[in-house]
Amino acid sequence: MTDERMIGMNKKIAARMDMLEPSGIRKVNEKALAMERAGEKVLHFEIGRPDFDTPEYIKKACEKSLEAGDVFYTSNFGSMELRTAIAEKLRKQNHIDYKPTEILVTVGLSEAVFDVLCSILDEGDEILVPDPVWINYKNVPRLLGAVPVSFGLKEETGFQIDLAEVRSKVTGKTKALVLISPNNPTGGVLSEETLRGLAEIAIENDLMVIADEVYERLVFDGERHISIASLPGMKERTFTMNGLSKAYSMTGWRLGYVAAPEEYIAVLNKIHQHNTTCAPSFVQTASITALRDETDEVERMVAEYSRRRDYAVRAINGIPGLSCQTPKGAFYIFINAKKLGVSSARLADYLLDHAKIAMVPGDVFGPGGEGYLRMSFANSYENIIEGCERLRRAVEELRG
Amino acid sequence: MTDERMIGMNKKIAARMDMLEPSGIRKVNEKALAMERAGEKVLHFEIGRPDFDTPEYIKKACEKSLEAGDVFYTSNFGSMELRTAIAEKLRKQNHIDYKPTEILVTVGLSEAVFDVLCSILDEGDEILVPDPVWINYKNVPRLLGAVPVSFGLKEETGFQIDLAEVRSKVTGKTKALVLISPNNPTGGVLSEETLRGLAEIAIENDLMVIADEVYERLVFDGERHISIASLPGMKERTFTMNGLSKAYSMTGWRLGYVAAPEEYIAVLNKIHQHNTTCAPSFVQTASITALRDETDEVERMVAEYSRRRDYAVRAINGIPGLSCQTPKGAFYIFINAKKLGVSSARLADYLLDHAKIAMVPGDVFGPGGEGYLRMSFANSYENIIEGCERLRRAVEELRG
Repeated sequence: MTDERMIGMNKKIAARMDMLEPSGIRKVNEKALAMERAGEKVLHFEIGRPDFDTPEYIKKACEKSLEAGDVFYTSNFGSMELRTAIAEKLRKQNHIDYKPTEILVTVGLSEAVFDVLCSILDEGDEILVPDPVWINYKNVPRLLGAVPVSFGLKEETGFQIDLAEVRSKVTGKTKALVLISPNNPTGGVLSEETLRGLAEIAIENDLMVIADEVYERLVFDGERHISIASLPGMKERTFTMNGLSKAYSMTGWRLGYVAAPEEYIAVLNKIHQHNTTCAPSFVQTASITALRDETDEVERMVAEYSRRRDYAVRAINGIPGLSCQTPKGAFYIFINAKKLGVSSARLADYLLDHAKIAMVPGDVFGPGGEGYLRMSFANSYENIIEGCERLRRAVEELRG
Repeated sequence: MTDERMIGMNKKIAARMDMLEPSGIRKVNEKALAMERAGEKVLHFEIGRPDFDTPEYIKKACEKSLEAGDVFYTSNFGSMELRTAIAEKLRKQNHIDYKPTEILVTVGLSEAVFDVLCSILDEGDEILVPDPVWINYKNVPRLLGAVPVSFGLKEETGFQIDLAEVRSKVTGKTKALVLISPNNPTGGVLSEETLRGLAEIAIENDLMVIADEVYERLVFDGERHISIASLPGMKERTFTMNGLSKAYSMTGWRLGYVAAPEEYIAVLNKIHQHNTTCAPSFVQTASITALRDETDEVERMVAEYSRRRDYAVRAINGIPGLSCQTPKGAFYIFINAKKLGVSSARLADYLLDHAKIAMVPGDVFGPGGEGYLRMSFANSYENIIEGCERLRRAVEELRG
């Protein structure tokens, strides 16, 4: 009876939804949260969520905005003041000359990705995406009937991109190329040489580029982030995408943006206005302060991430059966666990069940991630020490 | 050269975007905002945006949440505390027994509408929508390749629904029925009798019902809002959709929700997590307070809306060439301007250009709205007096 009813009701669900897998990252997170509600002490290394409180000057700006009564819809595009502040930031920090009217403010980077992909991908179109990759870049194209075509990010090359491979995957149906640098989940940062090569491929083949720069501020060891839209001939074919979540520890604020030529912004806004209407008003106002009144808070966070990264990389490379590269950016370590001889999925499950440490199985990010675990070091130094110790013991037990 | 380049670049835009018209409401609003930036004093009657500040107790709860450090991603579904508060509200105020796990928190009602339609409409599916209607219910289905099929809301019947007409429009492809009560743009409130008849049609034809109840608290003259999901056999086929924007004057906060059987919530969450990830964390916390710590603020706002409505209805019916019904709910007057013999679009343009009053031409809401103007009375009493006077003078001039 129940089954019959459920089957009957499932006919109501659109076929496209079968193309969309639930987020593997969020599956781990929901399981970890349920364990916590049941009283377990779980250490969270699964979510790309800075653990720092949002800097006080940004919170104060938000409170001031609330008190001033900024509680109404803004323009769908975002407030002109915020769009101006974003354009200034892109000019100053990224050396790209966008006008405020070339900016669309969105509900986090994730809505920006969703809106951009909806706006450019037709059924059957191909989009080049890294493997492993943050899964929205595969799932959303599939939802739209488009085809994500993967190129590898290989540990052997420091997770750089093989230009010849990218070139070989371009077909007449390829519409866009996705670049995430600094990279989630690998921690790699694309070199200027690679970016110039990719720009050449994009121009030659008339491809759009989706440049996900949300981790741009989180680079280590003097590494430098370069925006591909700053290279000659690239601004006109690039969606420069960013958000405040990672740099300012504002994941819960949901503030992102896309910069692109105005005719694209007009198209993006059509979907954005039917999707979320606009980003929250007082969050927009506070974001102006975040972008303009630069303090050294971001640098302080980066220094702390670096300290945690160094500890974790050393600890992990000291665990027999595991190894990892030193990430140059973002806050993820992509742990190579291939020697253990179990699947990433089984290993992650085992670690959560037995050691109460939540990490994302690498295959969630694509076949190239099989054999890896993604560990976020956006967690306290103490938790990272404790987590690495739990990891060591659990792996030892597993190896018997 | 520019044209050539633009045509070349437009090939990059997905075909589906041609199905999506820019919001006609927002077009009027953007024009009015641009006039203001140029120094004009425009009176805004175009946007469904309460003019009241958000009640102080809700703003305080938000500030407290920010100070407590609620600045991180929540569960994609929304925080369990908020889902619990929403379930309590639906039980108490709407007499529907939802579990917290049957609630998904979204970025405003608009994201809820977008996610629900994406989740159920396949290409070629039909969805029954009122005419006139809040345009998202036509535009988003079209974006998905589905077909909105209209049934009329006629002024002669107080904008009620003709059950025989709805029944006659059901085909083998009809998947869902959209109900907005209290209604935008007409101000009509569906009677219990009509709702029972619609429930019968939905059950007989195995249709889903999308019940948009965002204006439920704004009813006048003792009118009562009834949730269709509270009728027998309806909860299992209804998406009960709501948001805090209209009742609490929180349009800029972007907090909405969907209540539906758990298997639908699971599907909806797949798209929601790829779209916006989650609603802002501290907005969620403040929303718990909004829903639980009921003060008489909503009633006070409703009393003031009622006063404005009474003034405006009397004033409009006193202008030769115009007439209107007294809306029973929401905060819109649907002004009949047919006697003026100009199109809604031209009339709205004329009023904005010459009288600096922004109203939405009725045809924006569908052919059934041609000959009407939507005037929002979510504006101050003083502005409504001034607006009606400007309207009177402008119409007199037009009639020469």
